[in-house]
Amino acid sequence: MSERKILTDYVYKIVASLVQAGVRNVVVSPGSRSTPLAYAFASTKQLNMYRQVDERSAAFFALGVAKATAQPVVLLCTSGTAAANYYPAIVEASYARVPLIVMTADRPHELREVGAPQAINQPNLYGTHVKWSVDFPLPDDAAPTLPFIERHLARAVAIATSAPLGPVHINVPFREPLLIDFREELPEASFKQSSIAELKPSLATQQELASILRTTKRGFVVIGELALGTDLTILWDFVRQLKWPFIVESLSNMRSSVPEDCLPYIISTYDAIMKSEEFKALVQPETVLRLGSQPVSKFIMQFISKSQPQAYIVVDEDPMFRDSTGVSTHFIHASIGDWLAQLDIPETALEAEYLAEWQDANDIALEYIEHYTAGAIDEGAMVSRLLELIPNGSDIFVSSSMPIRDIDTFLMKTTKDLRIFANRGTNGIDGVVSTAMGFSQVNDRETYLLIGDLAFLHDVNGLIASRYQECKMTIIVMNNDGGGIFSYLPQSTVEAHYEDLFGTPTALEFRAIAHMYNMEYIRVEDISELFSKFSIVKKRPLRLLEIFTDREENVYAHRALWNLINAGLKAWQS
Amino acid sequence: MSERKILTDYVYKIVASLVQAGVRNVVVSPGSRSTPLAYAFASTKQLNMYRQVDERSAAFFALGVAKATAQPVVLLCTSGTAAANYYPAIVEASYARVPLIVMTADRPHELREVGAPQAINQPNLYGTHVKWSVDFPLPDDAAPTLPFIERHLARAVAIATSAPLGPVHINVPFREPLLIDFREELPEASFKQSSIAELKPSLATQQELASILRTTKRGFVVIGELALGTDLTILWDFVRQLKWPFIVESLSNMRSSVPEDCLPYIISTYDAIMKSEEFKALVQPETVLRLGSQPVSKFIMQFISKSQPQAYIVVDEDPMFRDSTGVSTHFIHASIGDWLAQLDIPETALEAEYLAEWQDANDIALEYIEHYTAGAIDEGAMVSRLLELIPNGSDIFVSSSMPIRDIDTFLMKTTKDLRIFANRGTNGIDGVVSTAMGFSQVNDRETYLLIGDLAFLHDVNGLIASRYQECKMTIIVMNNDGGGIFSYLPQSTVEAHYEDLFGTPTALEFRAIAHMYNMEYIRVEDISELFSKFSIVKKRPLRLLEIFTDREENVYAHRALWNLINAGLKAWQS
Repeated sequence: MSERKILTDYVYKIVASLVQAGVRNVVVSPGSRSTPLAYAFASTKQLNMYRQVDERSAAFFALGVAKATAQPVVLLCTSGTAAANYYPAIVEASYARVPLIVMTADRPHELREVGAPQAINQPNLYGTHVKWSVDFPLPDDAAPTLPFIERHLARAVAIATSAPLGPVHINVPFREPLLIDFREELPEASFKQSSIAELKPSLATQQELASILRTTKRGFVVIGELALGTDLTILWDFVRQLKWPFIVESLSNMRSSVPEDCLPYIISTYDAIMKSEEFKALVQPETVLRLGSQPVSKFIMQFISKSQPQAYIVVDEDPMFRDSTGVSTHFIHASIGDWLAQLDIPETALEAEYLAEWQDANDIALEYIEHYTAGAIDEGAMVSRLLELIPNGSDIFVSSSMPIRDIDTFLMKTTKDLRIFANRGTNGIDGVVSTAMGFSQVNDRETYLLIGDLAFLHDVNGLIASRYQECKMTIIVMNNDGGGIFSYLPQSTVEAHYEDLFGTPTALEFRAIAHMYNMEYIRVEDISELFSKFSIVKKRPLRLLEIFTDREENVYAHRALWNLINAGLKAWQS
Repeated sequence: MSERKILTDYVYKIVASLVQAGVRNVVVSPGSRSTPLAYAFASTKQLNMYRQVDERSAAFFALGVAKATAQPVVLLCTSGTAAANYYPAIVEASYARVPLIVMTADRPHELREVGAPQAINQPNLYGTHVKWSVDFPLPDDAAPTLPFIERHLARAVAIATSAPLGPVHINVPFREPLLIDFREELPEASFKQSSIAELKPSLATQQELASILRTTKRGFVVIGELALGTDLTILWDFVRQLKWPFIVESLSNMRSSVPEDCLPYIISTYDAIMKSEEFKALVQPETVLRLGSQPVSKFIMQFISKSQPQAYIVVDEDPMFRDSTGVSTHFIHASIGDWLAQLDIPETALEAEYLAEWQDANDIALEYIEHYTAGAIDEGAMVSRLLELIPNGSDIFVSSSMPIRDIDTFLMKTTKDLRIFANRGTNGIDGVVSTAMGFSQVNDRETYLLIGDLAFLHDVNGLIASRYQECKMTIIVMNNDGGGIFSYLPQSTVEAHYEDLFGTPTALEFRAIAHMYNMEYIRVEDISELFSKFSIVKKRPLRLLEIFTDREENVYAHRALWNLINAGLKAWQS
């Protein structure tokens, strides 16, 4: 068989296997060694191919596509440091549990570790941060080759899409020449389907758990970011069954689109009310149930840790379950959807007062926050205002570190339909623009990105994607000229080296960037301009709203609000 | 002892140990977990601290500082994906053999892999691409702790600075609170010095080698990029002793500042003359000696591979020596400087005609190239003109993929003092702006960066460094709107998907970027403007010269030149 036919058969078998396994989206970065696969992806009509020259941004873009579709996304790059640039997004995908199929083209064995150009040690390049890494054989016409790679690709997708979801790595070597014959049709699949198991606790575990939940007098549920693709209707049914206080973080997406009958049980202001020692003394729990990832707010976690409930139950799809309190008493290995679908708790023993204390404190905090933000001019007030301005049915992608905290503080429980997303696997400020671009690319809802100036600058190359495909998104940069988060940390009390090491102001504004990328640019000097500027007709699909705020003012305002709420809670309790 | 004193003792012991081991430069990215070490670095007057918020760029900046100083450079970042962003530069440092001391702050053990924020599995994060990785203990007041970390840091620097040079990784966990007491003086060192061995071949090996070199009638030397800090005077003495043709790549820095008496032996046009089958038949070698990394030109390596010399000797500091030809016959484990310093070859047997054939062909190619570039308008001609315009005593940092090839084609042997540097460990187009920024930061010579538009865009964040320290450099962007290198590869013969996958034009120009970073911007439309525009008075320390060229024209001109030379060599031989 000719070399060219062997190569062509090989790469179309790869594509066919991925398509058969359900892959629909591929993100490709230009390069030479990856040519055969890039050609095969580009010529396959069952696939959407996206492009981005900066591989770091490409991988985050793929992460965004995977988050929006809850489906595995394929990445392809050439050999060398291109592959190393994928690392930050792979690490994020690993902890955020997002299925990525990372394909790195490689030099053949005779050009590895011999000083040949663009050759690095690629097998196992991503260490413990992928669920599986495999080095493929070179294309050949031996009988086992094609059936083997077909099943290995089905396996790769199965591994990436079984709980906990995550990235896998396939290293694919190619020898020159790299040209293939284009084909219209994909070869037929001989492997049909991977069927992934549900994760349910045993009957005994379910009964024990139900018994604890049924008999608890003082307890609450904490819900963080849920696994990709979790069906929220099952969680709303759980709220209706349990009728406990549900402490839901903004990323759980249980603060918005709240069914009317569930509203009373949703507690959103815990970050504020957990600062009150009096309130904490009042609501010491006997049982805490925690679902999803650990929440953004560290106050709620500290409260659990200090109050040492008799039962602190963590439910997670991974036996390496996520809890840092050191006081967990039960771990339930389960996919939350699978487990809750069959949970049956006809009645509970929760004290009515216990629920009321949470509800009252939440209402008081809500009132203070609403009253405060109506008059304030700081970043928090801006975010609060934006949450009103952003239309029903939109999605907001939110950056670390301050914006997600602001959203978590100022997004109140509502029936309005807003969904919140973020990269909170590892809370990096890297790759956020790209993740949001990928997310918006496949999202049929309007997408907003809320981001700080340093995070925006860190991944300004995310915008390159807009040169290769039409991107639609409104980017809202909260420009406080540096690292706003640090003003809230003890470092801010030390004047020496503060701006050098933490504030790190760049004194940049992003009008020029917007201009370069042909974006609509809207500059908002302060909160008084927000409404009128926000409402400007959208002229271009990609818009940049740059809002200037002041780091010192923001801290001052936040602290003032917290003190107000604290005083309010004290007054209520006495 | 108070927690704060323990932490303060610990971080100043780290700093003192690094200073004792000769470290003078540190590149820090902002973050919280790294606070204690960042404070200690910032408050130590023996250290220069540079800052960059984008960790990918920060690591390349450090690489540039290390390349310019030939000294180890320390990197510091916070925990999480920040550390993963270092990966591309670490991989480059590993293959380019550059000493980096990568310090990643980490969460304490109780916050690892438990869902705590910004916590990833950091020990061994960089896999096989560091020479050593160590996870430090938490600060404590046990007697062994400080003496242990002191010796481990001395060891880290010794590993990074022994041949082959390379990166090492130290993971340093900290528990909150993270504040320290500032100190004026560093603690005294109890560990005094690491003394690194020279790498010399055994006497028997030296004699055998000398004997081959002495008796060879037809042979040449190939010199690629040499180990950091190699003393070129020893190599010039070697040229004078051996009097063979010396095929020197531009990155060896043996094409410029050539001593008058060495000029006849320097062959620089091999990329052109190696395309002539007739010439290759004429200069079949009996012995080839290769020093340094593999050269940029693949034609010379193919020639060696096909001609299968009786002796093909590769000298390298690493037993994992770099040679991809498959025809090496001898490997000499040596540091080139250490070995050549004691080599003594009083006379050689090289045939005068053999040398003359190389010299004549080189002269003919030189003449064609000079004549051609005088009239041409393509990228190659531009680079040739720039090499004249850039003043004596300057350094040029050159990007992959096309610029380094253009430099290698058009930098002729000269007594002019120009040094050429590049990231050729893995030939990535990533991190080039940052590497050049770091390089220029500590370089007392004027620095130019020659770079393509995609490479510039890929690391446009390298410019952020200029917001934190004054940077002086002239950046010359050859903007051919996309991936120029691919036009020279077989992919360019396939029309389908070519611009999508390989050309990848962005249609961007970089005036806005220059404006944003307060750089002087000079736009050069074509070669006729080059001289006048280049001579514009430097108004600002950071300048961007954007030169527009045409990808098709460039390929056409290159091919025309090669054909001319080929025809010229044919005429000469017949």
